[in-house]
Amino acid sequence: MNVSRRTILKAGAVAAAAGALRPATAFAGSDRDADVIVVGAGLSGLAATKALRAAGQRVLLLEARERAGGRVFNATTDGGLAVDGGAEFLGPTQDRIAALAAEYGVPTLPTYNQGESLFSIQGALQRVPAGLPLPILPGTVETMAAMARIDLNSIGFPVGEPWRHPDAARLDAMTWQDWIDANASTDEGKLFLALAESATLSVRPHELSALFMMNYFASAGNAQNPGSFERLLGVDGGAQERFFDGGAALVPLRMAESLCDSIVYGAAVRAIDGTGSNLEVFTDRGSFRAAKVVVAMSPAISGRIDFRPGLPSERVELARGYTMGRIAKFLAVYDQPFWRENGLTGQVVGDGTPIDVTYESYGQGHHILMGFISADAMADLDNRPDRDLVESGLDCFVQYFGPEARTRVIDYGFKKWDNDPYSWGGPTATTKPGILTRFGPALREPVGGIHWAGTETADYWQGYMDGAIRSGERAAAEILAS
Amino acid sequence: MNVSRRTILKAGAVAAAAGALRPATAFAGSDRDADVIVVGAGLSGLAATKALRAAGQRVLLLEARERAGGRVFNATTDGGLAVDGGAEFLGPTQDRIAALAAEYGVPTLPTYNQGESLFSIQGALQRVPAGLPLPILPGTVETMAAMARIDLNSIGFPVGEPWRHPDAARLDAMTWQDWIDANASTDEGKLFLALAESATLSVRPHELSALFMMNYFASAGNAQNPGSFERLLGVDGGAQERFFDGGAALVPLRMAESLCDSIVYGAAVRAIDGTGSNLEVFTDRGSFRAAKVVVAMSPAISGRIDFRPGLPSERVELARGYTMGRIAKFLAVYDQPFWRENGLTGQVVGDGTPIDVTYESYGQGHHILMGFISADAMADLDNRPDRDLVESGLDCFVQYFGPEARTRVIDYGFKKWDNDPYSWGGPTATTKPGILTRFGPALREPVGGIHWAGTETADYWQGYMDGAIRSGERAAAEILAS
Repeated sequence: MNVSRRTILKAGAVAAAAGALRPATAFAGSDRDADVIVVGAGLSGLAATKALRAAGQRVLLLEARERAGGRVFNATTDGGLAVDGGAEFLGPTQDRIAALAAEYGVPTLPTYNQGESLFSIQGALQRVPAGLPLPILPGTVETMAAMARIDLNSIGFPVGEPWRHPDAARLDAMTWQDWIDANASTDEGKLFLALAESATLSVRPHELSALFMMNYFASAGNAQNPGSFERLLGVDGGAQERFFDGGAALVPLRMAESLCDSIVYGAAVRAIDGTGSNLEVFTDRGSFRAAKVVVAMSPAISGRIDFRPGLPSERVELARGYTMGRIAKFLAVYDQPFWRENGLTGQVVGDGTPIDVTYESYGQGHHILMGFISADAMADLDNRPDRDLVESGLDCFVQYFGPEARTRVIDYGFKKWDNDPYSWGGPTATTKPGILTRFGPALREPVGGIHWAGTETADYWQGYMDGAIRSGERAAAEILAS
Repeated sequence: MNVSRRTILKAGAVAAAAGALRPATAFAGSDRDADVIVVGAGLSGLAATKALRAAGQRVLLLEARERAGGRVFNATTDGGLAVDGGAEFLGPTQDRIAALAAEYGVPTLPTYNQGESLFSIQGALQRVPAGLPLPILPGTVETMAAMARIDLNSIGFPVGEPWRHPDAARLDAMTWQDWIDANASTDEGKLFLALAESATLSVRPHELSALFMMNYFASAGNAQNPGSFERLLGVDGGAQERFFDGGAALVPLRMAESLCDSIVYGAAVRAIDGTGSNLEVFTDRGSFRAAKVVVAMSPAISGRIDFRPGLPSERVELARGYTMGRIAKFLAVYDQPFWRENGLTGQVVGDGTPIDVTYESYGQGHHILMGFISADAMADLDNRPDRDLVESGLDCFVQYFGPEARTRVIDYGFKKWDNDPYSWGGPTATTKPGILTRFGPALREPVGGIHWAGTETADYWQGYMDGAIRSGERAAAEILAS
């Protein structure tokens, strides 16, 4: 194989160009006009569509792909099993995803969390009781202190509007690494606080605004329960508490099924023209018109749409300032959870490479070890053929769980997000220092009938499925109130 | 990797079991009762649904997967390009697929067919003008004679009802290999006639009834134009004459979009109960009821459904007698068609392994070499990790087209059908000797309100997209006339 980074990128560009130039297939729907056009059939766009339709609005939901769900996606293993290739877990205070799962009858299961988890630090494995957040090391105490400081900060934090925080200017002038250096002095303490970020956002601590991270912690709650470090990162009582039997993608897929009359697939939006009396949305399947548009996608992607007239410079700069994390998931399937027999939860966090975080999940007759390949490790693997991802993923599982991770594997799958032409990475978009305080207020500010959704625009559970739904419902409410 | 055939099969079984046991997600549709239930949203089921709805019938279309299209499927390359992972081409007399492509606005492009194609025989490559069907070799003359005999036989052949052929008993008592041995004496002649079958059906000549093959040739036409060897296998004037810009899957995807109100995804049908006043169809998403059911799938798969009361033994044996071919497609993407510069069409047929047949296709800014990996070669690769498929596929392309096939590749993709839990192989199901004459009449015979569609039940273009559509429309017509 000679598939270099350059050629892979070229292939991505080819795919994008093919999309841009592809002749429009006919649109069989009765009408190209609607009250509201929603752009993007991820959870945020589906939630907006659902809310708008429930209020009697005629809605067209335009989706670039041939499937709904966006970053919530069931990958297929070599053996044909549907596995979570994208968003996977849910936990307490994630009220909206829980409500939709119940409404559409998608069952959830508890994440296995008995025995000991592993911390992997510089090749050494520490076993830690599943209930404890950290191994007992010199850096633990100051990490706990930092966690307490973060949690205190989350009380009263202007969630979703971090630029309104009293200390916003200082926090948005520093990276998360700067904050760590100011709040920890031991190597372990710094590592733990770095991992708390990179395991969650899949970018390196020196790429990220400390204000963004503080808002992210504060976002891990709801109106009644301030966000916390523990809820963001935990299993029991945290965002990884449960997963969906059959895959999280069943939620958007079932929503799409029930809203199917509104959805146009293969309709990548290339331009939105607001110079006429209505907004006109140009897609690979022709143009559509509505008085209102919800752009339901990451701000890191929305900049690819050509807006006419141009958007206010604050919105343009905001979109440019957001970048997606670099991530893939690798999933290995076993018929027995041999790690449990060894007293392990199947959970790892650490500085291992390429997989720095693992979880287990299970279903009828199979057990899955899932590893996140994130940030720099994924950027390296983007250069290389898929077999390297599979082999190095299994190598990592062997390192964490022993040789059975390789000898007993019966199936595997993976999903690389960085080359995905309509996501550009995952799990969410983040900002470097200086963006949120300068351009943040443009995040949700409607522009001439254009409203903004996407999990990045959520107040609570920004970056999560729950936040995506909240954002879509909020955008719908804006339109219904206007 | 230690993913053996056994474990891969186990994984497939796991996937099937997971499907069988998965709790039903809610069905948001207003009604679980319909006039007709169609099982399977491949082209045949979609065509049946479309015809029935046009006649005013209330139809529910139950699909096991989360997508429509069945064996017509856009695979995604590593770089995000949509490529034909399944059915790909269309040609003259394929009137129904052409009509639907036009109706839904899916454009087609001509297959490049200038210069010379390659015959690969025992490692040696013969260049043959693209217009000629065979290289000039000692076996050519007797092969041409056999082709003429086949074409003559197709005139007046009882297409789709081969058991009614005057010579049916003799032809269905022999394999295609037996027929070859009786009609060719040179090694080349035998090879050409074997390739004509294996390149088309992806099973070995000694696995296949000669009667099945004769019907298949006769099926390559329409009511006005008897089928022919050349139309089945040819490019210009044949079944490989054109392909779909953006992928053949756009046809079923656009049909599914326009019929979406009828479709229930994730609803693998496990049982059909005809003991009550209505037929009751049990799925992973609960049960549905109708007076009529169209089972729109390969007979090789329909046997997985539990029919109550049991089907007539002829139908049971017929379903058992059909087996799917073993096949995968490997696709390599290039930015320039370097083979054309060397005077080659990009088409190969021969006894090479694992890829024995290639075609090229193209779109905006990219060119694709596609190779079929079929029959025994695919059965071998089913035992091995995906990287072996990719590497051996590229090795084959290098052998056929030179080292640039590897050095200039910018992207690749593949689709393995044998492990697919809802297709079980491809491109179509075939019968060994003895099945068609004994049980063939049960192929389309309705059983207590249950009608049968699927490309295997077509008269013309059995095994092709066109035949799938014809079969669905025929099943709908049966119901509307009943």
